[in-house]
Amino acid sequence: MLVSESTKILLAESEIPSHWYNVQADLDPPIDPALHPGTLQPAGPDDFAPLFPMSLIGQEVSRERYVEIPDEVLDIYRLWRPTPLYRAHRLERALDTPARIFYKYEGVSPAGSHKPNTAVAQAFYNKQDGTRRITTETGAGQWGSALAFACNQMGMECKVYMVSASYWQKPYRKSMIEAWGASVVPSPSVDTNAGRSIREQDPESPGSLGIAISEAVEDAATRDDTKYSLGSVLNHVLMHQTVVGQEAKRQMESADAFPDVIVGCVGGGSNFAGITFPFVPDKLAGRDVRFIAAEPQACPTLTRGRFAYDFGDTAGTTPLLKMHTLGHTFVPNPIHAGGLRYHGMAPLISQMVDLGLIEARAFHQRSVFAAAVQFARTEGIVPAPEPAHAIKATIDEALACKESGEAKTILFHLCGHGHFDMSAYESYFSDAMVDYAYPEEEVSRAMESVPAV
Amino acid sequence: MLVSESTKILLAESEIPSHWYNVQADLDPPIDPALHPGTLQPAGPDDFAPLFPMSLIGQEVSRERYVEIPDEVLDIYRLWRPTPLYRAHRLERALDTPARIFYKYEGVSPAGSHKPNTAVAQAFYNKQDGTRRITTETGAGQWGSALAFACNQMGMECKVYMVSASYWQKPYRKSMIEAWGASVVPSPSVDTNAGRSIREQDPESPGSLGIAISEAVEDAATRDDTKYSLGSVLNHVLMHQTVVGQEAKRQMESADAFPDVIVGCVGGGSNFAGITFPFVPDKLAGRDVRFIAAEPQACPTLTRGRFAYDFGDTAGTTPLLKMHTLGHTFVPNPIHAGGLRYHGMAPLISQMVDLGLIEARAFHQRSVFAAAVQFARTEGIVPAPEPAHAIKATIDEALACKESGEAKTILFHLCGHGHFDMSAYESYFSDAMVDYAYPEEEVSRAMESVPAV
Repeated sequence: MLVSESTKILLAESEIPSHWYNVQADLDPPIDPALHPGTLQPAGPDDFAPLFPMSLIGQEVSRERYVEIPDEVLDIYRLWRPTPLYRAHRLERALDTPARIFYKYEGVSPAGSHKPNTAVAQAFYNKQDGTRRITTETGAGQWGSALAFACNQMGMECKVYMVSASYWQKPYRKSMIEAWGASVVPSPSVDTNAGRSIREQDPESPGSLGIAISEAVEDAATRDDTKYSLGSVLNHVLMHQTVVGQEAKRQMESADAFPDVIVGCVGGGSNFAGITFPFVPDKLAGRDVRFIAAEPQACPTLTRGRFAYDFGDTAGTTPLLKMHTLGHTFVPNPIHAGGLRYHGMAPLISQMVDLGLIEARAFHQRSVFAAAVQFARTEGIVPAPEPAHAIKATIDEALACKESGEAKTILFHLCGHGHFDMSAYESYFSDAMVDYAYPEEEVSRAMESVPAV
Repeated sequence: MLVSESTKILLAESEIPSHWYNVQADLDPPIDPALHPGTLQPAGPDDFAPLFPMSLIGQEVSRERYVEIPDEVLDIYRLWRPTPLYRAHRLERALDTPARIFYKYEGVSPAGSHKPNTAVAQAFYNKQDGTRRITTETGAGQWGSALAFACNQMGMECKVYMVSASYWQKPYRKSMIEAWGASVVPSPSVDTNAGRSIREQDPESPGSLGIAISEAVEDAATRDDTKYSLGSVLNHVLMHQTVVGQEAKRQMESADAFPDVIVGCVGGGSNFAGITFPFVPDKLAGRDVRFIAAEPQACPTLTRGRFAYDFGDTAGTTPLLKMHTLGHTFVPNPIHAGGLRYHGMAPLISQMVDLGLIEARAFHQRSVFAAAVQFARTEGIVPAPEPAHAIKATIDEALACKESGEAKTILFHLCGHGHFDMSAYESYFSDAMVDYAYPEEEVSRAMESVPAV
């Protein structure tokens, strides 16, 4: 019964990493460049300038291995970083596995996930470059609340276009966005041409992430004082998340441990990059560490998608990225892990999957929630639906160890708590949760939207 | 702008206190004994035995200064303890005060508040004494979820009688209780005589905390394998919370600081006791430290109540406690700080108020939420409505320092996050929140229910 060993491994504030790790320095071959949506030629810095400050555009294409974290960003990181690394003694015992399981917990941030790691950095660089106001889109609200928090800390305005259906169904994330002083409107809104035109066609439109992106981008592109911010997919966003894996590595070292397997969930790829990228140099140097990406069966971008150039948004207005995609017109079924419902994937992750550096697995949501409940009943923390995919993959690995008798060391990323996702648990406990069959036809149809480049 | 000083003060797991501090050893005169509701004579251990295990009954009347924390309890505390102490640099700057403000944050526990500190201890002693199953009541669900978590960790059954109105209006806490494997029913339920009799009179009864207590107590009293657990008010419950203040004291020492003022909110008194009691020996030894208890104007137990023997529940079936009370039939207006809506107060806190060791202040909820929003917009954490009362009192103190030019050191207890209270913020932002005038007549009427002892 009694554990009496160390449960959490903590670091001092002075041990927050001083640099972000940029995997682009070590990736060979490098990722293919983004293409301009009109010319289909490689997009240059000027193409991105209406939306992003030059400092972030520079980070997007940088090959520098380490990028120093500005003091102003570290200063805000200190509100919750370093985050704890846990040894999952109780889960191990429940599984009766010889595997050692560790998890890095990012739910201690004010917004409750890893998202503020990049939100704070993006707000800082924008402020430094003279941006007064930032726009973004949000679905369930996790990213919108992180950016609201970051802009508030930096003394900047923030406007969040929140998918209308979520805005009305999930008022709590909206209230959190307002608590941090940002303004939030249901999208489609009357504030943009994109929004107004959709509302003219369909006054009752529930909105979509694609529409909300169009609104946020239009708002930023048409105002001099305003830029746009994205919570995942892009190279600089993934780089900002590497504080997670760097801390975890140091924490595991202090426990004399090194992971045989690292597990994270993937939507756009940022939390997965955060935990795994700092271990890429070890892997490239021949160290035996596997990276497992866990995704939903309802949106199996890595396991069933094509590695090709495609648009980032539904309307097809963004630059084209070379990535795993289910087709930019694909609309996933409404699984509870809203953060994993994206047709594409970060180009860096996609490239590494293509190179065989990352394995991918897909799971149905009922099995994912069964894992989440087992975790809550052993380790105590109630996880968000997204990292519950990583928990499911971790449990499978640990049970395979039980079978084989191997005492592997598994590290997974618990990137957020489930306090705003309890209606999903409600659905699971009341047996109302459904597993969606792989949408064969819908994906085939959407795949036709992938442009021939 | 830049803080660049230490923001959080962390302790190692090895620095979790090894003992609880029992203020009864130092309180002179001691508190008056509980009285049997039938005989009005001092209640003995046997009177409590149907509801509590003997080990906890022993703690209730113990005068031992330090009680060792069992290894099994420490083991579970390690899932979130020690909790961080923050220096509120950003709030200080926003207030432009010379005061130094520190806060101890208990929202990092799995249940999101300080409540698991006693829930785990109570579950442990019950298990040790052969209890198989524990019952309790819960209003908004904070205590019910903490006990569900604790019983789950100890491998015990837990049944929560949740006030029916909350059960249906706040399904998320209910889902959290279920996530930890406890059973939860809306009260009044069909599972007890008390519940059935209320339902016969009023099939649509929304329930009340008083009714839920009656159900949980009846369930425990009528089953051999079952005991009852309370989340505040009683001496042993308050004692279990002293890990909070002991850690805070050590953390402040490591910052070369000692509080001039300690602030906490008060409902039943447990979070306030947790942060202040470990400083009582310092105060009694002549050290200049003030204790400020912050309560709602809608339920001003300490500022307007009478210090007298009264019942703990609405129906008048519990032993009588000598405490500040508004009368046990008093039903407070529905303020959002559900955890502070209690007619009575812990006898230990009441005695200390009577002795002049604790000052009390009452606040209207709109001013409390203004303080909560200022806190969220400076320190980042979105606080629960209950500790927002402590934030309001802290800001008032800090502004008084600005006026007087004194650089006082203020410590307050941020006993929980507001992730399950966002509808209260919604109400505040939409200007729907009302301040209730002091219910003069209702209190006068309820005061007549205080028995003449």
